[in-house]
Amino acid sequence: MKVAEPTVERLIQYYRLLDRLNGEKTKVVSSLEIGDMLGIKASQVRKDLSYFGEIGKRGVGYDVKRLCVHIENILDAPRVWHVALAGVGNLGTALMGHTVFKSYKFKVEALFDIDPQKVGRKIMGVECYHSRETTRIITEKNIDVLLLAVPASAAQSCVDAAAASPSIRGILAFTPATVAVPDNILFYRVDIFAELEKLLFFLKEKEGKEKIKYHKLPE
Amino acid sequence: MKVAEPTVERLIQYYRLLDRLNGEKTKVVSSLEIGDMLGIKASQVRKDLSYFGEIGKRGVGYDVKRLCVHIENILDAPRVWHVALAGVGNLGTALMGHTVFKSYKFKVEALFDIDPQKVGRKIMGVECYHSRETTRIITEKNIDVLLLAVPASAAQSCVDAAAASPSIRGILAFTPATVAVPDNILFYRVDIFAELEKLLFFLKEKEGKEKIKYHKLPE
Repeated sequence: MKVAEPTVERLIQYYRLLDRLNGEKTKVVSSLEIGDMLGIKASQVRKDLSYFGEIGKRGVGYDVKRLCVHIENILDAPRVWHVALAGVGNLGTALMGHTVFKSYKFKVEALFDIDPQKVGRKIMGVECYHSRETTRIITEKNIDVLLLAVPASAAQSCVDAAAASPSIRGILAFTPATVAVPDNILFYRVDIFAELEKLLFFLKEKEGKEKIKYHKLPE
Repeated sequence: MKVAEPTVERLIQYYRLLDRLNGEKTKVVSSLEIGDMLGIKASQVRKDLSYFGEIGKRGVGYDVKRLCVHIENILDAPRVWHVALAGVGNLGTALMGHTVFKSYKFKVEALFDIDPQKVGRKIMGVECYHSRETTRIITEKNIDVLLLAVPASAAQSCVDAAAASPSIRGILAFTPATVAVPDNILFYRVDIFAELEKLLFFLKEKEGKEKIKYHKLPE
């Protein structure tokens, strides 16, 4: 069964909401309430959840805790993923400290940088290697996922070095740089640029101080 | 005219691609090529661009430079936005150094933190204030946008303090925390958690080592 990306995105939203509701000791929630809180149609919520085998009680709703555990299982990792981080600057360091990266789902097993102050040292308990060793270390440590937090100018060479290892399966990039990634490697991007541009676009629309000119440009 | 969010997202993708093509000295690009490179249907590309007043030449395509400037104008800011950053830890520092935040579209005019080592100092040329001064400083400096890079536990109080000022119009959050934001404030999130979970979900699907159980849970 192939699950579409927007479905997975909604599933992650459901999980996050249910986890919060569970923490707030909410016992039951309806598809209408879930939809309202997330800006999704109730019919879509019911469709998604029934697709994953969960049907709410008519007039009652879903058991929060049960549904939360159920979605957690769907999102669960089959094993601990082996992760490496390229780029131990401020962003990389922030990522290492981010709650999201303290997940039981994976383990950061290698760092890469070119800074002589960092290479050869352990940082937050993880060994930092020189970037030129990327392919070898990724292969030796059987790394599945590379987190890419290097400057834009170094992004492509990091991806190439990682992709040269047979073990790498996915890359999560934190750079706005466009990079070419082989088809067999999953590539996702945490897109600061796009979110910021969206915010600014709608701010402008809202302010309405400047009318956007959509008419044709002069030839 | 109200532009839908997915349209704006595509517009940002077009812009990024065209900017790159322009840098590579590509002169002309067809809707089919744009679509291929971005994973969007050619018909959608043509529809989007004609909606914004740009029509390619049949059998030739779009003039890259002209189209790039055109979209840049649509995304352009009517004025320089006044921005403040809450949380000057590793993440906040990384954001200040990020190319995206060296945009001519806005200016970071205040930092907020609670660390006595930072409060009262200038960091990368910007004054850092104590978080308890958030409302006053945001009002005085007429800040439009707050970048939220504080730990999850501090996110809500930061949002509340910012929202208490009449000047704040938008928040871009870098925290996974769920926060309540007044309706009159635009809120976007750079969602590290969701992108990472998506990557791990599709990695799992691809590996196919573990079958996901979609059948009904026991009652």
